[in-house]
Amino acid sequence: MIQGKVTGQVWSSRHLETLPKGALLEVEVAGNKIVAFDPLGCAPGENVLITTGSVAAGHFTEFKAPIDALIIGSIDDT
Amino acid sequence: MIQGKVTGQVWSSRHLETLPKGALLEVEVAGNKIVAFDPLGCAPGENVLITTGSVAAGHFTEFKAPIDALIIGSIDDT
Amino acid sequence: MIQGKVTGQVWSSRHLETLPKGALLEVEVAGNKIVAFDPLGCAPGENVLITTGSVAAGHFTEFKAPIDALIIGSIDDT
Amino acid sequence: MIQGKVTGQVWSSRHLETLPKGALLEVEVAGNKIVAFDPLGCAPGENVLITTGSVAAGHFTEFKAPIDALIIGSIDDT
Amino acid sequence: MIQGKVTGQVWSSRHLETLPKGALLEVEVAGNKIVAFDPLGCAPGENVLITTGSVAAGHFTEFKAPIDALIIGSIDDT
Repeated sequence: MIQGKVTGQVWSSRHLETLPKGALLEVEVAGNKIVAFDPLGCAPGENVLITTGSVAAGHFTEFKAPIDALIIGSIDDT
Repeated sequence: MIQGKVTGQVWSSRHLETLPKGALLEVEVAGNKIVAFDPLGCAPGENVLITTGSVAAGHFTEFKAPIDALIIGSIDDT
Repeated sequence: MIQGKVTGQVWSSRHLETLPKGALLEVEVAGNKIVAFDPLGCAPGENVLITTGSVAAGHFTEFKAPIDALIIGSIDDT
Repeated sequence: MIQGKVTGQVWSSRHLETLPKGALLEVEVAGNKIVAFDPLGCAPGENVLITTGSVAAGHFTEFKAPIDALIIGSIDDT
Repeated sequence: MIQGKVTGQVWSSRHLETLPKGALLEVEVAGNKIVAFDPLGCAPGENVLITTGSVAAGHFTEFKAPIDALIIGSIDDT
């Protein structure tokens, strides 16, 4: 998994019908920006743990979602 | 997922028969160019959201398509 | 597979219910940090072998775990 | 998918029995060289479109081929 | 697939039980080192062809092996 910091949200009015409802967050990972589906309700500035690839899509068990990056946890401050 | 900007289209007259009919768009992602299948009718200059790997191929449910990058949404201007 | 050195542990109190119980270790791999699930009880400073992607998730056979990086062995000192 | 230019061919006399018969072409992609299976009969200098990962292996439907890069089309000159 | 040169072997006495018996070779690929399972008996200095990801794990048909990099051929000298 990779760690990143939430930097914003991405909105897409015109999208595939199979895109799950929920937030698509922009996350900075080692200087690069990716977009991850957020089932946990994370906020900007939060450090999160992200899983990628077909493992991310496996979260959606009732239909085939075109999601290849998923926030699986909020990282505790230490 | 990754964000990119559509920069053009790629044409391939000689291709596998399993290549789905539709546009293959060239998209610039963080300085690199990839080619993604476009089921949404996007235009040059448009910012798009792309899913990759086997998740992209999962969009094609009636046959096995050799597609590993798929535009899943057009990103709203903000 | 990739080799890395364990540099710490990541804690996530708020996470998906499907996240397996066990340690999530921070591992440095060629200058980058990734987070891997550790079924072996490795310690900071230990050199480990990591498998990634859907192969990592395949370790969990009774449920679908959102794990895309798994420690599969501790590398012997030579 | 990624675009690349065919730069040569790779020969392997000693290989897994599951390696499909056919050409293994060396392709330059953004300065790096990868090796892709070529079902189309491409030639050195030709620009090709390549799909990678398990999607590439999905091309082989009668057996499990250890192929993670597949030429799916020859790119038209424009 | 990627080409690399065998540079050594990795030993892991403490490992998952699902790790297949056989050599885990260290291979240099474009300046980086990865570890690949070797079913062919390759030697240091040999140039090899490697497949990665779930395609590599697909080589093991009787059980689920946590292998994401597999040597599929020895590259002929030219």
